[in-house]
Amino acid sequence: MMKIVECIPNISEGRRLDVVEEILAEVRQVPGVTLLDYSSNADHNRTVISMIGEPENVLEAVWRLITKASETLDLDQHQGEHPRMGATDVVPFVPVRGMTMEECVDLAKRLGERVGRELLIPVYLYEKAATRPERRNLADVRRGQYEGLKESIKKTERTPDFGPSVLGKAGAIAIGARPPLVAFNVNLGTTNLEIGKAIAKGIRGSSGGFVNVKALAIDLSEQGLVQISMNMVDTQGTPLYRAYEFIKTEAAHFGVPIVGSEIVGLVPMDVMMDVATYYLGLHNFSNEQLLEKHVFGF
Amino acid sequence: MMKIVECIPNISEGRRLDVVEEILAEVRQVPGVTLLDYSSNADHNRTVISMIGEPENVLEAVWRLITKASETLDLDQHQGEHPRMGATDVVPFVPVRGMTMEECVDLAKRLGERVGRELLIPVYLYEKAATRPERRNLADVRRGQYEGLKESIKKTERTPDFGPSVLGKAGAIAIGARPPLVAFNVNLGTTNLEIGKAIAKGIRGSSGGFVNVKALAIDLSEQGLVQISMNMVDTQGTPLYRAYEFIKTEAAHFGVPIVGSEIVGLVPMDVMMDVATYYLGLHNFSNEQLLEKHVFGF
Repeated sequence: MMKIVECIPNISEGRRLDVVEEILAEVRQVPGVTLLDYSSNADHNRTVISMIGEPENVLEAVWRLITKASETLDLDQHQGEHPRMGATDVVPFVPVRGMTMEECVDLAKRLGERVGRELLIPVYLYEKAATRPERRNLADVRRGQYEGLKESIKKTERTPDFGPSVLGKAGAIAIGARPPLVAFNVNLGTTNLEIGKAIAKGIRGSSGGFVNVKALAIDLSEQGLVQISMNMVDTQGTPLYRAYEFIKTEAAHFGVPIVGSEIVGLVPMDVMMDVATYYLGLHNFSNEQLLEKHVFGF
Repeated sequence: MMKIVECIPNISEGRRLDVVEEILAEVRQVPGVTLLDYSSNADHNRTVISMIGEPENVLEAVWRLITKASETLDLDQHQGEHPRMGATDVVPFVPVRGMTMEECVDLAKRLGERVGRELLIPVYLYEKAATRPERRNLADVRRGQYEGLKESIKKTERTPDFGPSVLGKAGAIAIGARPPLVAFNVNLGTTNLEIGKAIAKGIRGSSGGFVNVKALAIDLSEQGLVQISMNMVDTQGTPLYRAYEFIKTEAAHFGVPIVGSEIVGLVPMDVMMDVATYYLGLHNFSNEQLLEKHVFGF
């Protein structure tokens, strides 16, 4: 089976779109890498880029992107609302197909080593690639941002995983690995936002719910609905159907029905297959049974 | 989107496997066609072959197969338990992806025209490709088999759609188009076969149930279960989840739970996606949202 990884580098430029294009051109030059999406935000002065492909190709593409960003962006001149510490600020690898998280951690480490050695940019490994528990959370890694890190990087506890303990104009990069994120919204047949808030509170990890679910209640008053808007940050640990069934049960307690749901953006096929096999109680189903598998070889 | 068609020719040879291999070699020579599966049965003296690929490639491959079978098989010498009327006996085209049934009917007609004209083999169009209502059902088309058809082909009502009204040693071929068939079994937590029979009777089209479902109750006494074994012959018309929910409701009436299900063999991805979107009540979900789509382009 072909291995597929997604990589979502965030760069600290969201205003000069010609400069963003120059950096994207580096990715486009690498064969076998698909630029899935990119989105620049002027207020954040930041661009989020998503690419996908076989691991070695993606590794090469993001290496070129980081190199180009370090040549063209200057953090001393950068202002924006979004926290950042580097020209390329954060680089997560996400296993999409035929890959383990360990393989993504390995990609993060190989990239980090090269960035530290060849570009002399400090690299912090984060999330699943973190080498210390206190570096798992990106917000902790980025604390103080570029300006604060200039000094604090000299402290032992801020020593980078790769590269020098000195910050140049390209700043530092957090490189890591994490599961795919799925944006999953469930609509409730009520206009009572308080019910939505109670359910969102019940389902999200931060208030006692599922550890891999972030949730907010949103008032869709024009449609006469309340929406539980979720980020599912690890659909292997907490699949979509479990969130759905949880919400159904909690909502029924208020006499409120689910009236539909939506997935925003992209979703790995396996996440959907898990839903189908769960509801039909399918035993021993394998993706080998998908007709398309035998044509496309995924 | 790449168009994908499946074709499942049945040939009247299931004993001389070297001859079967000779015929399969014709398919293997055509680039862009995947030989999914083939299965020879000596009692039936018949081999069922499944291939998949882009329409023009599959058309070429099955044309070569029919040509070779007409050269190597002699129906005057053929004996077997399975009804048959030709060296290549039946050729259904099945839309797998990006194709309409009409496009498969068109493939059937193009193939039939060429077989009639170049090989002088009588061709009957059947199922969705049938030109007369009484030719929809394969059993009606094949009535009398090879031996009977030698005479009856001279009657007006048996005039073939293509080719001469004369039967040579290669016999006649039924060429048609049909939806994908999914073998879907649902297990019931009971040892009472009568309950299974009542549910199978309720769900199958032939006794008042769903027109696209064929069903039998099977005693899985070793496992302490009864199985509703189904052929879903049109999953667009009657999706898996509808059969599942019907069985669940009927079984509950007897105080019997569903304890699992299975899909035997291959299934188009869209059939599984329909299950997932149904149970989550997903609005506006598109296969464009599948990450893999952007890598494999299916």
